[in-house]
Amino acid sequence: MSKNWSQIIRELKPYVPGEQPKDKLFIKLNTNENPYPPSPKVIDAIRKKTDASLRRYPDPNCEALKQAIAEYYSVKKDTVFVGNGSDEVLALSFISFFKQPQPILFPDISYSFYEVYCSLFEIQSIRIPLVEDMGISLVEYEQPNGGIIFPNPNAPTGKLLSLDSIEKLLKQNGGSVVIVDEAYIDFGGDTAIALIDKYQNLLVTQTFSKSRSLAGLRVGAALGSEALIQGLERAKNSFNSYPLDRLAIAGAVEAIRDEAYFQSTCKKVMETRERTVVALSKMGFSIVPSMANFVFIKPTGIQAKELYVRLKDEKILVRYFDKPRIDAYLRVTIGTDADMQTFIEKTAQIVAAA
Amino acid sequence: MSKNWSQIIRELKPYVPGEQPKDKLFIKLNTNENPYPPSPKVIDAIRKKTDASLRRYPDPNCEALKQAIAEYYSVKKDTVFVGNGSDEVLALSFISFFKQPQPILFPDISYSFYEVYCSLFEIQSIRIPLVEDMGISLVEYEQPNGGIIFPNPNAPTGKLLSLDSIEKLLKQNGGSVVIVDEAYIDFGGDTAIALIDKYQNLLVTQTFSKSRSLAGLRVGAALGSEALIQGLERAKNSFNSYPLDRLAIAGAVEAIRDEAYFQSTCKKVMETRERTVVALSKMGFSIVPSMANFVFIKPTGIQAKELYVRLKDEKILVRYFDKPRIDAYLRVTIGTDADMQTFIEKTAQIVAAA
Repeated sequence: MSKNWSQIIRELKPYVPGEQPKDKLFIKLNTNENPYPPSPKVIDAIRKKTDASLRRYPDPNCEALKQAIAEYYSVKKDTVFVGNGSDEVLALSFISFFKQPQPILFPDISYSFYEVYCSLFEIQSIRIPLVEDMGISLVEYEQPNGGIIFPNPNAPTGKLLSLDSIEKLLKQNGGSVVIVDEAYIDFGGDTAIALIDKYQNLLVTQTFSKSRSLAGLRVGAALGSEALIQGLERAKNSFNSYPLDRLAIAGAVEAIRDEAYFQSTCKKVMETRERTVVALSKMGFSIVPSMANFVFIKPTGIQAKELYVRLKDEKILVRYFDKPRIDAYLRVTIGTDADMQTFIEKTAQIVAAA
Repeated sequence: MSKNWSQIIRELKPYVPGEQPKDKLFIKLNTNENPYPPSPKVIDAIRKKTDASLRRYPDPNCEALKQAIAEYYSVKKDTVFVGNGSDEVLALSFISFFKQPQPILFPDISYSFYEVYCSLFEIQSIRIPLVEDMGISLVEYEQPNGGIIFPNPNAPTGKLLSLDSIEKLLKQNGGSVVIVDEAYIDFGGDTAIALIDKYQNLLVTQTFSKSRSLAGLRVGAALGSEALIQGLERAKNSFNSYPLDRLAIAGAVEAIRDEAYFQSTCKKVMETRERTVVALSKMGFSIVPSMANFVFIKPTGIQAKELYVRLKDEKILVRYFDKPRIDAYLRVTIGTDADMQTFIEKTAQIVAAA
């Protein structure tokens, strides 16, 4: 603590990302990275752009990337915003739309960065408990609010809210901005981007870190009405003019364009997820139905925390959240079939020995 | 304007970066980019890292880059912070240290992003007029304040404050954080990093965009006491866990290590600057003494704005600020000798025809 820290910085509890071990022997199932590499076209595009032009600033408006995303979703370029990972996009969204007299609403079990943004930007919030089956109960969101945000599928549960339910929520909530954080939408859900024309207060955020295998490149996006996107641009241009570097822009454009590669890796992850669910169910574990690239599981015969520690001893990293209501669970990223085979075998051994 | 924008976003006047024309025929002397490419070792390092590992998150703590910077300046790693360009580093510094009951102080003529950060984070400020010769008058900073910031050399003037003067300022200002923004220090100035051990409230920010020819890669840094750096880490980890991608980290490490290349490009820029100053002086232009990679010039025989427009017609871009006190000046980035030769010839022709 320093006397020079502002009051806000003193009081913050910063977000803690999953461990990034230097030891490459770990099977990393803890940060929802894609087990498959990015498209070879992405690699080629980045290498091609790695030249003398790096002395020049990137396009501050990232027109090429916005255009590629707009074409992909058949929307206008002016409804697309891009940033340095969806975390930066979310942070800018909080300051742009959620700094309101009323508190914002989000599920008590969801992406834990939301409460950190609230502290950083001095935004009041009400956390709405998930119902028994870890689902979002729409009726609880029928109250005056300065905004609503939730991940869809939710994290760390993996549970998906249908597009119908999202539209119901938008209809009942005319005033404030609703952010649907679709970090994991490509693993079996339907994007709410289809609704942005109809609901001027809907913002959909996405990331290139999961389904497009580019966690290491830092690219995220938001889609919404032109008025919302203009608000985000104002915030971005008051924080950092060029958050996406030349290589990130070039790589992300190709990632969007290589549809066949994208579809095939998503399909592989989903198939492995279903096989993993079957194997864990056989072991008697409870598993929240997942439409993400991870499963949220409640072990049987061993405490979640202990299983986390034992797996780490076996060089398998999963995510354990030492928080009320979810401390009996582990979040396990879907790796390759081989990764998951090892995870299941080791887990079975650990449980048997417990 | 949207009813969904927060009050802050409505009232902001975002920063406007220099134009980035798509037409490659322009001689670009408007955004202080380096006319020389990054070190070949930087290019190699980035290409080598462009592989399957992009599916993984980068090191959120950027240990390799902090270590390289710490070794370069012979300081401890815990006194180094890195971010997505010095703009992000500055933004995080404002929220970490400048959100105080007292207003912060900065020169009325300086980097125009400072006032934007103040709006974004609701920080009060007092702008201290530069004195007659465009210099910073230390005595004006002897007043209660929540922080002090200035570029050194100053932008857009290019004028350098000596290390002695900076130490005087630090001695007279015991309480609040003093940020010395050294975006342009490598073109003839002495860095204040030598003083961070002695003054716990000194933060020095730097960028890889100018002297290290990496504007396109987005890397900046701050050096200061461990307590200040910890404050910055708290802010960063509450905004975006991974602002530097894998390629930016790899490239920046090599840029720091290739000292010979760095020295040779800085030397070339400084030599070209001196030749440019001589040529412009001969034409009767006033030139603020510059220790940066640009010159701030007051044309004779033509209005600054008109010269800016005419040069643009000739495919030469310089920076004109339509602001009181500096609207008689142009800021001209130092390009290659050939660039500057063309700039001087065209300028002479335009003035002769005016």
